[in-house]
This record gives sequence, C-alpha cells and structure tokens, in this order.
Amino acid sequence: MSAALATWIDGVPAEVLPADDRGLHYGDGLFETLMVRAGRPRFLDLHLRRLALGAERLRIPLPPLPVLRDELARLADQAPSLGILKLVLTRGSATKRGYAPSGDEQARRILSLWPAQPLPPETREGVHVVMAAGRCAENETLGGIKHLGRLENVLASREAQSSGAFDALMSGSKAELISGAMRNLFLVTGDRLRTPQVRTAGVAGVMRAVVFREAGTLGLGCEETLLTPEDLFASDEAFLTNARIGVVPVKRVGEHAFTMPRIALRLARHIEGLDA
Amino acid sequence: MSAALATWIDGVPAEVLPADDRGLHYGDGLFETLMVRAGRPRFLDLHLRRLALGAERLRIPLPPLPVLRDELARLADQAPSLGILKLVLTRGSATKRGYAPSGDEQARRILSLWPAQPLPPETREGVHVVMAAGRCAENETLGGIKHLGRLENVLASREAQSSGAFDALMSGSKAELISGAMRNLFLVTGDRLRTPQVRTAGVAGVMRAVVFREAGTLGLGCEETLLTPEDLFASDEAFLTNARIGVVPVKRVGEHAFTMPRIALRLARHIEGLDA
Repeated sequence: MSAALATWIDGVPAEVLPADDRGLHYGDGLFETLMVRAGRPRFLDLHLRRLALGAERLRIPLPPLPVLRDELARLADQAPSLGILKLVLTRGSATKRGYAPSGDEQARRILSLWPAQPLPPETREGVHVVMAAGRCAENETLGGIKHLGRLENVLASREAQSSGAFDALMSGSKAELISGAMRNLFLVTGDRLRTPQVRTAGVAGVMRAVVFREAGTLGLGCEETLLTPEDLFASDEAFLTNARIGVVPVKRVGEHAFTMPRIALRLARHIEGLDA
Repeated sequence: MSAALATWIDGVPAEVLPADDRGLHYGDGLFETLMVRAGRPRFLDLHLRRLALGAERLRIPLPPLPVLRDELARLADQAPSLGILKLVLTRGSATKRGYAPSGDEQARRILSLWPAQPLPPETREGVHVVMAAGRCAENETLGGIKHLGRLENVLASREAQSSGAFDALMSGSKAELISGAMRNLFLVTGDRLRTPQVRTAGVAGVMRAVVFREAGTLGLGCEETLLTPEDLFASDEAFLTNARIGVVPVKRVGEHAFTMPRIALRLARHIEGLDA
C-alpha cells in the first residue's frame, strides 16, 4: 500500500511499473515536485520549463505538454487543500542491458499525488542547518537539472536528520557552497541577494527562479555567483527555498547565529501571496 | 515485454514493482552484475562482499545471504551457456515523501537474468577508448560502491558510443583518472600494475579485485594509486576490466596507440581459465 494518494503511469491509474525501467537501474530520468494549493499546481510553467531542459540534456523525449498539463490538472483536482504532485519522467524500459541507451526506449511518466501539511509557524520563523560532509558531483550535463540520481541528497538529508537540523548545506569540490540537501540557498547582504551557481552541480530550483523573478519588485538585486562558507558567515541573512516551503529564513548554521531575517520574511510573504 | 529472460522480486517471479520504490525516485539502492558461465555465477563471494559493503554504507538491510545465494543459484540454473545475472537491492517503497529515509522501509531485491554473447575476438585483442568530458562525483560514502545513481556512467557511455569507442575514461575533479564508464582501468609499466583509487569516486569492480588477487601468481606487482592521463600515456600497456568482459587490452586512447599488450593478454587468459 503506497503512501501516495494516487499514482498514474503514462496517464493510467497504476501502482506498479516494469522492473526493467532505466530510472530504477541507472537513475536515468528526471523529476519535478509541484506544490498544489486549492487544487492548482503552483508555478507549473516554471516546472515544465525545467523538465524540458532536463529532457533535452538527457535526450529523453518529453511527452506532449498539453497531455502533461491535462494529467497534472486532473490529479491536482483530487488533492486536499494542500498537496504535492510528483512527476517522474524516465527513459523507460531497457531494451538491452547496459548503461548506454539503445535509442529505441519509450519514455515513461509516473505522476503521484501526496498529502502535505502547512509549514509549522516555528519553521517559518527560521531554521537550523548544518554543513554536510559529502561533496557534490560536478558535471556540466547534469548541473542544474533535477535528475533521478539523488543519493548525495539522501545522504546529506540523513546528516541533517541525525543532527536534528532542517537541512544540510552541500559543497562542491572546491568547498564552494552549492545548496541544501533539499533546498536552494540564498545569502542576503544589504538589499542584495546572492545564490550559488548550479552550472555543474545542484538543482536550479523553481522557487529559486521565482525569487530571481520577484526580487526586483521588492527592490532587491539578485545574482548567482561563486559563494564560500565565509561568504555565508559574513552575510546579514540566509534563507532556503523550494517549491514545498517557499522561502524560509536560516536562523543558525552550526554554531553561527543570524539576527532578524528582515528580507527573507518579506520575500516569503510576497511569494506566499502570489496567485500561482 | 522485458528484454530480460526472467525477473524475480523478493524471491517471486514478477515483472513489475511498486512505483514508490526509492531506487526509482532517488537512486537509493545498489546493484551487482554477475557473469554466469555454464549455469554458475562467477566470483559470487566477491560480488556479495561488495554488495554487503554498499549496504552498510547506505544502511540498507541486506537480505539473509543464504536466501540470496539460493535465489541466484536457481536463476543461474535457467541461464543459457553464457548469461548475466543482475541483482538490484533498493531501500524499498517510500513510507513518506522526501529524500531522508524514514527508517521503516522494507528493502527490496530485484534479480534479473539476461542473455550474453561471447566477446568478439577483435575485442579480446584490444579496444579503442576515448576520454570522457564529464567529471565524476566525489563522495567518500559513495566512492567504490555500486549504487543506483549511474547517470554519469550513462552519459560517458553515450560519449563512447557516439565516437564509436568501446568505453570512455572518466576523471575526477582534479583531472585524475577514475575508470571507464563501464569498466575499471589498469596501467602496466614493466611488471607493475597500477589502477586508480576508488575511495571517493568510481566503483571497486569485482574483476578489479580478481586482478589484485591473481597478480602475484603471475609475478606482477599491483597497487591502487593516484593516476593522471600523463601516467596513462607513459605506460607500456593499459587494460579494462569488469565482470562481463574479464580483462581486455586497450589498443588506443584517442590518438595515442599502445604496442603489443603482453601482460594484459596473459592476465586475460589466466582469469578466463579460473574455475569460478
């Protein structure tokens, strides 16, 4: 019995998929995690744009967008007042054994609907994060896209979990900041926002894109750049973003405490209020 | 209709698995690829030892070894004269959404049997490889184990494929050699074998372990160490290893040609002749 409320595979309600799927065997696929509010997936266009970019990078054929939109809308319709829609797109069943695709696979899409709870008020006020020990993979083809190979994130999440933290910050091979295990990271200095590049590692989050888009409205500058832990500790504020949580201030990184998250809370309220 | 000859899930013939498996969603699992010769899996103990190491690293409970051995033996029994047994062990179905495991998942094993052909004679004599563009992930927990997140290998295999090469050599963040996309790499200088460390990236191959074990018998030294492309080009010979191909000489890397693979062919014959 699945913890998901509903699962559709290639448009049909189904709980199981073929055991030879390359998503399972090699992580050969992509996913999106959409927040559903009042029966509507938030920031759907941004999610579909990232999915399309990932599909192009991995050369997995994208299902027709009207079909995807229709299926997502119909599943979102079944959601409770808050829900999560997860869309997995794999290269499909292996037509031969081995890493290299044969080219004649049929891409498979797995949509599932999950219940979600509102964020606890104490989370909205600020969270505690730690620095993760493991380093992120660097690969220009995989950087920024939301592919299925997420063991680094699983391990970093476990690090967060075992130290009672909300998230764990992951670094690249030169100890530069990449992101949280489950969220993107922003630093605030004055009225300037900075977030790590995700060119060779990490995920270009949809909520990250929303922050970029909305920053100007609030009179904030926003750039992606190389950032170190020293930059983090020298910042006025830091915050985490993803589709599920929106914007959440970081109150503490390890032993380093941040003061009042003025900008992060403004952004959080603004984005929460958007009609999307 | 699967290209596999047979598939068993948790000991029962089955073609499908639950769509909420964490192996699919996050690459949260491990695998082994065993060569089956005359109905017997080769180097079974070495495969089970690596699986156990990976399971310990990822904290996935290992099925009882007698059960695994029995299932592998019974499937191998159905194999044609040459076959491949693939064993996938995942953390099982997600009991909640999100990267961090809840700890109450039930590990799932997927065994599948695939047909295999003998290596073409021209492959045994030597192959052409290229240098892959993408860099390998570095992570001490994931280094050496055969986890399901293999997109880097899928991409490097595609690089090999598109240049008509047998394999593509992958590098780490400092441009040090790691392995082929599908095989481990050895360099030969005099009577000394060297192979890249797989402490933070790559897979500690079973055939790699067999080469270590057997080198002494043939009067060869063998060590794992940091190796660069310059070391490769300065070597007398190079060869690739995995459970499927055994030992295969490298004839050419890009434009660099190697001369007669004396040691590689001796090793290949010796290992091919082992009663395992």
